[in-house]
Amino acid sequence: MRFRNLKNKENILDESTYVIKNPEEYRGMWKKVFNNNNPLYIEIGMGKGKFIIENAIKNPNINYIGIERQDNALARAVKKVPVGLSNLRLISMDAMNIEKVFDKEVDRIYLNFSDPWPKKRQGKRRLTSKIFLDKYENIFKKESNIFLRTDNEGLYTFSIESLSSSGYSLYDVTFDLHRDFSDLITTEYEDKFSSNGDKIYSLKARK
Amino acid sequence: MRFRNLKNKENILDESTYVIKNPEEYRGMWKKVFNNNNPLYIEIGMGKGKFIIENAIKNPNINYIGIERQDNALARAVKKVPVGLSNLRLISMDAMNIEKVFDKEVDRIYLNFSDPWPKKRQGKRRLTSKIFLDKYENIFKKESNIFLRTDNEGLYTFSIESLSSSGYSLYDVTFDLHRDFSDLITTEYEDKFSSNGDKIYSLKARK
Repeated sequence: MRFRNLKNKENILDESTYVIKNPEEYRGMWKKVFNNNNPLYIEIGMGKGKFIIENAIKNPNINYIGIERQDNALARAVKKVPVGLSNLRLISMDAMNIEKVFDKEVDRIYLNFSDPWPKKRQGKRRLTSKIFLDKYENIFKKESNIFLRTDNEGLYTFSIESLSSSGYSLYDVTFDLHRDFSDLITTEYEDKFSSNGDKIYSLKARK
Repeated sequence: MRFRNLKNKENILDESTYVIKNPEEYRGMWKKVFNNNNPLYIEIGMGKGKFIIENAIKNPNINYIGIERQDNALARAVKKVPVGLSNLRLISMDAMNIEKVFDKEVDRIYLNFSDPWPKKRQGKRRLTSKIFLDKYENIFKKESNIFLRTDNEGLYTFSIESLSSSGYSLYDVTFDLHRDFSDLITTEYEDKFSSNGDKIYSLKARK
């Protein structure tokens, strides 16, 4: 997804204490940033941040880090974070570099409405391709946990194949998330999409 | 699926040389029945037999065994088998007893439009439940291969979860088989269902 240009985005990111400027410096030491031993959940491609911010508010005993490579989106998320939300941090980076920022310390990865990269030759760029799953292996603490939502059938079937082929067990597999589960925290995109009556595919994967 | 009563079904089954009467006697020795070392593919719940008969005609170098517990369906299949189809046999039995009939000699299992057993407490009866997958482990020769088609979303998502949790890699996962693949051999039920424009879910699983 592309986001409209936000003129003062550099200033917004620079001035926010939620945005970690040199995340590589904290590799393997994120619990020091949060100053506790709580679980660490990250969202790769958090967009405008609704999902991860609401999660952080609801679950103070879990640490959250949102990752987004588009500063136009990240800056919009920053503007939304309430004051004093101590269990949330945000990072401007490309998921390709995820291993430079985390080391065996992540408990769960959320992938919400990731870019489907629909053309076959783009397969490697999908966030559930083997290239990325191998990277995630190095950042998960113990058990690997990936929670995925998408409206894109191609990305979804690709992810089922890729995750099962990398040894993941799939559960809570549903082709209509909002029919089968309630009390969900949603993304901005998801709200728009669901309000049209369109179905959201979802699955959880662990190994 | 239930089939209409066929009055003379016992006679039809008794008189057919395609129907194996005491299949337990051939456990571990099916290659002697076929008198060759060709791969063995079985279809569990073959219904009226269109799928497996057409496969046997098309692929003379593969041995096929169709299993069906409803004699009303099996007898209809028998009436359809052309004379001299030496790579096909049929068995009247319940899949629960599959280990009594095969022993490390099956190369592929087809599950086409199996009973979805939609209620939660019926989960164990589904042909992709852990109970059945464990049985299949004992009848597969080397690699385990399961090819599944269904129009039932519940059975399909259940199968994705169950197969991946038993260590299977999934591939050719599609939510619209007839859109994504061509030159398919179909079942009677599938033809009826597809002609209404309804989608067929399909996947292949190996480990």
